[in-house]
Amino acid sequence: MGTVDYTFPQGADEPHRRHHTVEAPEPQPFLKSLQYSVKETLFPDDPFRQFKNQNASRKVVLGLQYFFPICEWAPRYNLKLFKSDLIAGITIASLAIPQGISYAKLANLPPILGLYSSFVPPLVYAVLGSSRDLAVGTTAVGSLLMGAMLSKEVNAEKDPKLYLHLAFTATFFAGVLEASLGIFRLGFIVDFLSHATIVGFMGGAATVVSLQQLKGIFGLKHFTEATDIISVMRSVFSQTHQWRWESGVLGCGFLFFLLSTRYFSTKKPNFFWVAAMTPLTSVILGSLLVYFTHAERHGVQVIGNLKKGLNPLSLSDMVFTSPYMSTAVKTGIITGIIALAEGIAVGRSFAMFKNYNIDGNKEMLAFGMMNIVGSLTSCYLTTGPFSRSAVNFNAGCKTVVSNIVMAIAVMFTLLFLTPLFHYTPLVVLSSIIISAMLGLIDYQAAIHLWNVDKFDFLVCMSAYFGVVFGSVEIGLVVAVAISIARLLLFMSRPRTAIKGNIPNSMIYRNTEQYPYSRTVPGLLILEIDAPIYFANAGYLRERITRWINEEEERVKTSGENSLQYVILDMSAVGNIDTSGISMMEEIKKIIDRRALKLVLANPKGSRKETDQI
Amino acid sequence: MGTVDYTFPQGADEPHRRHHTVEAPEPQPFLKSLQYSVKETLFPDDPFRQFKNQNASRKVVLGLQYFFPICEWAPRYNLKLFKSDLIAGITIASLAIPQGISYAKLANLPPILGLYSSFVPPLVYAVLGSSRDLAVGTTAVGSLLMGAMLSKEVNAEKDPKLYLHLAFTATFFAGVLEASLGIFRLGFIVDFLSHATIVGFMGGAATVVSLQQLKGIFGLKHFTEATDIISVMRSVFSQTHQWRWESGVLGCGFLFFLLSTRYFSTKKPNFFWVAAMTPLTSVILGSLLVYFTHAERHGVQVIGNLKKGLNPLSLSDMVFTSPYMSTAVKTGIITGIIALAEGIAVGRSFAMFKNYNIDGNKEMLAFGMMNIVGSLTSCYLTTGPFSRSAVNFNAGCKTVVSNIVMAIAVMFTLLFLTPLFHYTPLVVLSSIIISAMLGLIDYQAAIHLWNVDKFDFLVCMSAYFGVVFGSVEIGLVVAVAISIARLLLFMSRPRTAIKGNIPNSMIYRNTEQYPYSRTVPGLLILEIDAPIYFANAGYLRERITRWINEEEERVKTSGENSLQYVILDMSAVGNIDTSGISMMEEIKKIIDRRALKLVLANPKGSRKETDQI
Repeated sequence: MGTVDYTFPQGADEPHRRHHTVEAPEPQPFLKSLQYSVKETLFPDDPFRQFKNQNASRKVVLGLQYFFPICEWAPRYNLKLFKSDLIAGITIASLAIPQGISYAKLANLPPILGLYSSFVPPLVYAVLGSSRDLAVGTTAVGSLLMGAMLSKEVNAEKDPKLYLHLAFTATFFAGVLEASLGIFRLGFIVDFLSHATIVGFMGGAATVVSLQQLKGIFGLKHFTEATDIISVMRSVFSQTHQWRWESGVLGCGFLFFLLSTRYFSTKKPNFFWVAAMTPLTSVILGSLLVYFTHAERHGVQVIGNLKKGLNPLSLSDMVFTSPYMSTAVKTGIITGIIALAEGIAVGRSFAMFKNYNIDGNKEMLAFGMMNIVGSLTSCYLTTGPFSRSAVNFNAGCKTVVSNIVMAIAVMFTLLFLTPLFHYTPLVVLSSIIISAMLGLIDYQAAIHLWNVDKFDFLVCMSAYFGVVFGSVEIGLVVAVAISIARLLLFMSRPRTAIKGNIPNSMIYRNTEQYPYSRTVPGLLILEIDAPIYFANAGYLRERITRWINEEEERVKTSGENSLQYVILDMSAVGNIDTSGISMMEEIKKIIDRRALKLVLANPKGSRKETDQI
Repeated sequence: MGTVDYTFPQGADEPHRRHHTVEAPEPQPFLKSLQYSVKETLFPDDPFRQFKNQNASRKVVLGLQYFFPICEWAPRYNLKLFKSDLIAGITIASLAIPQGISYAKLANLPPILGLYSSFVPPLVYAVLGSSRDLAVGTTAVGSLLMGAMLSKEVNAEKDPKLYLHLAFTATFFAGVLEASLGIFRLGFIVDFLSHATIVGFMGGAATVVSLQQLKGIFGLKHFTEATDIISVMRSVFSQTHQWRWESGVLGCGFLFFLLSTRYFSTKKPNFFWVAAMTPLTSVILGSLLVYFTHAERHGVQVIGNLKKGLNPLSLSDMVFTSPYMSTAVKTGIITGIIALAEGIAVGRSFAMFKNYNIDGNKEMLAFGMMNIVGSLTSCYLTTGPFSRSAVNFNAGCKTVVSNIVMAIAVMFTLLFLTPLFHYTPLVVLSSIIISAMLGLIDYQAAIHLWNVDKFDFLVCMSAYFGVVFGSVEIGLVVAVAISIARLLLFMSRPRTAIKGNIPNSMIYRNTEQYPYSRTVPGLLILEIDAPIYFANAGYLRERITRWINEEEERVKTSGENSLQYVILDMSAVGNIDTSGISMMEEIKKIIDRRALKLVLANPKGSRKETDQI
């Protein structure tokens, strides 16, 4: 169909003044264009650029530095940097110990696992990770999600051993997933969790986690396994006769203490360490209080015995038999993706602050290895939690050595200090969790979404309410489904606009945006603002036909020169599939039948595609 | 963040010569922009435009014509038109009778249902439908799909009554779905079945249907219910001792007869009626042959008794009880969508030929009503099959009256002629089906896809092999999933390009496409070719950073003026979501940190969005 003059590049910009022809692009061999697409899809940041034009030995050094970032900074490490890292490391350790214990309880796992998980994974990350500010540890949302998903299959109280082994197996699969996404450079899958989804999801999870802490605050012994607000509230208020006032008073007191120090630290950023130290201080104060008043005999539950010693190996604990394995795989995939999303976002935000670059795919590999090694050494799902990394950043960390310091501090605790936690009241842990969670409910972000983009607000709210009234998975699935449906809907309804001439220029612009631009008599210039695919081809056919109808009617009533040319400005049409090509053929027929002429301005894409039209 | 000068509209086209400012767009009230979006999404063709500026009585007339297209053409109908319609109607009736009987067998339904389904639905369509060329009837693919899906739940031989009732119920739900899609103007959902998907799916279904006809050709009594090629071939070749040569000879003879007349008619389009009449001729010849040779006693199976009389009512036969209802709903939804896709495409193609317009959503309503009424009068799923409509078109039909003529001819057959079909051999029906199916395997379209778009070819092939080796549903689901994954992948990797100045002009264009364009020293002009969403925000950040890195390196080695401005040409960015806005903020930070200046040229979208950057 060689009737359409596509060597008409300046089309919309100066239809009848000058003529700049453009060569039809060379036909691209299929393999070459495939190679190009694969590169753009998987290596948009061109990570191996630095290897170009280097000799072999330099390539080996660069390769080592690429795969083990520690090789890059270790030779330049010095005492001054270490001093900063030491302070930061001790600060995050003081947060990591109580948080680790609390979050392990959230996942229905033995508290000691929280400490184990703050020992091995940070060391792995120190070797492989490229963020300088990320502090490794478990997260409340990851713990909650793992607890909720595994509890559906196995009761943690009735069969604690199987439950524990399932947790290791799920962590292993989460690690395998993360590492493979990194190796195959499929990190962009995480992009499909949009900002709005994450805000809603995190807020919902924080709400649910906080409500569950009412168990600890009121000192309840029996509690629902479900995470939705209705089950939790029913569980709390059906047992009012079991509420223990001692526990409640202690919980509210510590919560007030935690929240007020945090408020103080937000107001005076120099005193960030006050808020960072408060959880450990609360644990010490709470333990002393229980020890001296023997409150454990008056309804204040305590942690009890913690085993002394470092992480035992857990390689032989993996469960690879059905029916449990499928639960472990499913839990691993979902928790792994969520953990990745948080870790990558945190690493990127701080890298942005300090102006260095991190490669998301390399980070995924580091997270993956950290969880694989962790799962073999009695750790459960870890990532780079926002709260702990922010403390690390504020405490002035310079490199991942702060993670090593934290790991050593935790090791010291595991070896010598675990007996001290015997009297730590659970209610203090609940207060620590609630105070951490309240920071995750980012209502300002939700208000911002409402102001900027109502649809993103809808996505955010459906994630929130899905989590709060349904379950963590339901919220996630609903939010992702709505986000993708939105993409498809937008894709199926691209914008089209009439372009007009801007007086005294050769420039043609959207007439709605530039109201003083004037349409040229006899010409209808339409711009199409999106690639043409099967999903929008039908719409574009209808819409373009309607533009032409409306223009012909307008011309008829106003008595102008009748329409002669329809110019489609294809500048923004980056791609067109076979349905799109059929659509263009139909448009051509429609226009021919009305004795008009069709001109394509600025077509792109490979020659094959353009030739068909 | 008012630091970015977005009143810089001519940006990429003439950065330092002239200055055309553009007013920041008025803030749009949320409801107004919502209303606009809803209109663009659901009413892109503005179907009610004709009602504007009309008085009340005219509006009533237009409304009647809108909802009952028969009101539009009936007053203008005349004898000349009727003569054409009469010939076309008789021609399609002669095709409809044998095809109807054959396809009903394909769906494991009593043959008489095929005749019933060519009587009531065409009459309903004649009142509500707006295509002048579409001939209503059952289709092979729809029948096969219904048969395969219902057979999973109920065995048609063991419980024929329940099976029949389920078929009515599924047809009812298909009708309800089609009508609701039409009423809520959600017709664009059908667009997600791309051209490539349909080519592959139809080809696969045709292959499967043809292979199943080996049962009839070889006169086998027992046959697999599965539709995949492996089960079917196993079924055929495990029973070689049951093959009947009489049946085989008859089948091959008629198949040759059918194919050769079709070949003749394709070569000489004036003799289209030869091919159209052959199926009925074959049925008559076959029946006479059996009647006189008593071949039914020598292994040639015949239709047997067909009940005389018009469609009995089937309202009380609907099955609304579990567990069958969910099967009926599922079958109804899938077969309904497939039937719609075929019917709409057929109606649109012929409307395109004759230069009239049909409204897809109105057609859906017509199809829906046709199936709802059909399901209450012992009909099963009908649509506008391509083969029958093509015959109708070739026979010179002028209006839907040809459907009425066909319905009357079928009525006449039902009332008086059914006994004549007693001796019709099944093998003739199999030959008719095979010869119709071979036309649906559009290998030329597949070759075209391979040449034009490898990815569409992949989609097509996965639909084909999914249907042939899996099942009809698997093929469909796989093809749609791949198509959507492709959309998402393309969306997540939009094209970006450097723009350069075309010598002696003020025009800036993609430097790859216009190799003689020159970049301006100190400026890096990047164009972004897609809306910015969460799915591509991460990629764009990486890619833009890489463009800047590469440009800075290039400048350094070539010793040009150092980079000062980065201009992002946003002409093609029709939309931006909150993730996109965060991305733009990050880009701004990255660029600021390198002491460069960011300029957004030609930003669009509502003011709210632009203001945030």
